[in-house]
Amino acid sequence: MTEKRKCVLDGIRVADFTRVYSGPAATQLLGDLGADVIKVEDLGQGDDARVFGIGDNSHHPLQGASAAFIALNRNKRSIGLDLKVPAARDAALKLAEVSDVVIHNFRPGVMERLGLGYEDIRAVNPRVIYCDISGYGSAGPLAKQGANDLALQAHSGLMSITGTEQGEVVRCGSAVIDLHCGVIAAAAVLGALLHRERTGEGQRVEASLLSSSADLMAVFYGEYWLDGTIPKPMGSGNRLGVPNQAFATTDGAVIIVANNDDMWRRIAGALDKERLDQPEFRPIAGRRQHRKRLLDMVAEICARHTTQTLLDVLSAAKVVASPLYNVAQAADHPQLAAIGGIAEVDIAGQPIKLITAPMRMEKTPPSVRRAPPAHAADTIEILRELGLTPAQIDALAEAGGIRAADAARRTRKTG
Amino acid sequence: MTEKRKCVLDGIRVADFTRVYSGPAATQLLGDLGADVIKVEDLGQGDDARVFGIGDNSHHPLQGASAAFIALNRNKRSIGLDLKVPAARDAALKLAEVSDVVIHNFRPGVMERLGLGYEDIRAVNPRVIYCDISGYGSAGPLAKQGANDLALQAHSGLMSITGTEQGEVVRCGSAVIDLHCGVIAAAAVLGALLHRERTGEGQRVEASLLSSSADLMAVFYGEYWLDGTIPKPMGSGNRLGVPNQAFATTDGAVIIVANNDDMWRRIAGALDKERLDQPEFRPIAGRRQHRKRLLDMVAEICARHTTQTLLDVLSAAKVVASPLYNVAQAADHPQLAAIGGIAEVDIAGQPIKLITAPMRMEKTPPSVRRAPPAHAADTIEILRELGLTPAQIDALAEAGGIRAADAARRTRKTG
Repeated sequence: MTEKRKCVLDGIRVADFTRVYSGPAATQLLGDLGADVIKVEDLGQGDDARVFGIGDNSHHPLQGASAAFIALNRNKRSIGLDLKVPAARDAALKLAEVSDVVIHNFRPGVMERLGLGYEDIRAVNPRVIYCDISGYGSAGPLAKQGANDLALQAHSGLMSITGTEQGEVVRCGSAVIDLHCGVIAAAAVLGALLHRERTGEGQRVEASLLSSSADLMAVFYGEYWLDGTIPKPMGSGNRLGVPNQAFATTDGAVIIVANNDDMWRRIAGALDKERLDQPEFRPIAGRRQHRKRLLDMVAEICARHTTQTLLDVLSAAKVVASPLYNVAQAADHPQLAAIGGIAEVDIAGQPIKLITAPMRMEKTPPSVRRAPPAHAADTIEILRELGLTPAQIDALAEAGGIRAADAARRTRKTG
Repeated sequence: MTEKRKCVLDGIRVADFTRVYSGPAATQLLGDLGADVIKVEDLGQGDDARVFGIGDNSHHPLQGASAAFIALNRNKRSIGLDLKVPAARDAALKLAEVSDVVIHNFRPGVMERLGLGYEDIRAVNPRVIYCDISGYGSAGPLAKQGANDLALQAHSGLMSITGTEQGEVVRCGSAVIDLHCGVIAAAAVLGALLHRERTGEGQRVEASLLSSSADLMAVFYGEYWLDGTIPKPMGSGNRLGVPNQAFATTDGAVIIVANNDDMWRRIAGALDKERLDQPEFRPIAGRRQHRKRLLDMVAEICARHTTQTLLDVLSAAKVVASPLYNVAQAADHPQLAAIGGIAEVDIAGQPIKLITAPMRMEKTPPSVRRAPPAHAADTIEILRELGLTPAQIDALAEAGGIRAADAARRTRKTG
């Protein structure tokens, strides 16, 4: 029978023990796809990411809700539980028992010590899909080592190929490994849900920053294993194309890419056929041999024109080119809004823009249904859904096991 | 009834019209998860990525199989079809008709002109999942613009925050947007397969480099929309932590991350409590105010020790730290092998190492079953599976519609 579902994960509940970046990215995507994501936060400040960078933003309009937290935590409800208090740990286990997916990014061993390891949860919920997200995976000499995005940028060699031609290496400006890991974890969960739908069988799945970084570096590792190549950073360029980098214009910069000879001829034709379309610049080996001379000529031409003029001629010649935008220009570019890339939610009475899920699905479109939650905003509501009585909830509060920003609401409703 | 499946996508067929990076990354992941991926290649050199960088590698052991191609095309069979020859196009449509998933990364409109658009395929295969991968999405002013990873690094602002403190911006060394897009497309297909499993309904899904880049930049766009921040590159550091960057050692460099005050106290204690654990360096606002003095002191200490000595003391203090490895050190680090991150296949009689799928699944483990195919290695085999008779295959060959590296094999078998 054909059943109508608005989102692909409608009816799926996710018990989310993650914080900071990779895990919240994974669960946000599951939430965008329709899942009911319940974010378990400690009683202190909650997810560390709530205050990331806030120190830099004293003029920040939303106290206690950093840009990082806002970007990664929509479509979630928040429950404040101190997992070291037995009754609160029991509530967490109850949540895991009635969830389809349990996901965490503690160091290996932490969930087990809390009595929330895979075996603990499978015992009460045999169909559970349990997802570990770790820094370096669950085996090997570094398994217990803490990690973050920058550590893996350094460990993976990504930093060693990111930098200037003079050899100064720099970080890739965004937390690309964390965020890639988030989508990988979500994909593993989707695969496991498909398997469970067919067979009834749950399973344990795992993503790690190390595996995610290796996925981003696979071409370079493979080349090194093939022939010993150890690449160095090349500024905005790389070894694959000439040109394949940024050039300054009168009012900014433009990147121009010739990834084959045909593209180079089109670039030469668009910029200055007479000077550039020379036989020694084809095939690619010639452009590599005469790299400096060719790049100097292209640079000299670009330096005489505006970015827009260059884009117009290059794009008419079907050359891959782009302005080098800053964050403001990128965020506000009309193309992003045109493809539905921006949503708006209300936080503390203010309209806040968010980037939507990165895929489109015609029949089951991802959606933004809830703004990122205030810390412990839904504690009482969730405990009630788990079947706790008002007396049990009061006892939990007295034992110091919960934080409940919705306690006032509860009082109003029940008082 | 519980059904045993070795991989989660066993029995799923993917008609793969993608090339270069994002698309092949997506279909390789589907193949790793068990799908039968049939890569449709043109009759010239096939996927452009087959020769990427080969010019730099005249000592390359596998002529015509670049590191980039090898890294992104295992678990696929290759059929060589000239889609402009009507009978070959018909064979492609037949393939799409019997496939669960059809995926391409041509510019918008190309598949439609070939008669292989979503509506064409849905007409013969109503349950199909059809995945478009594009540069800038399917609507808006840039929809028809060609793109690649570097173009989106520039367009998205990722390059504008990647570079030196002096303001020289550089590319992120790997094609992170392409590869992130690949996993996003695979996740969309997995979601659509789950929906189809439940409802019988196929659908069209879409990923784009633009959406994928926005996913990686969401925190920065959000911060700009909140308070107007337009970040600049900061070398190996960023604004969130002090320290949070690389420091030179006697024999290399190490990254050290203090993402909160507690982590900073542990760093100070591990390196030189007396000099570093000063009240003006807490909380984070103090470390920002005295950034240069603090970083100079940490740099001076690190410069007197080996990387290993520093790692030992930092890791004993549970500080997030890592050596800055080059590609060789990263690829050969025992941790990667320990978590099953490396597989080996045979290509032209040589053992070749590959990076495995970036997730682990206990019950349905991703696997490497086939080496990356030679160009058109499986043409005859696939045409036969599609039900073409030997006479029809001969006619197709005579019309110039196919390339068949397995033709000799066919002759031997049928002759």
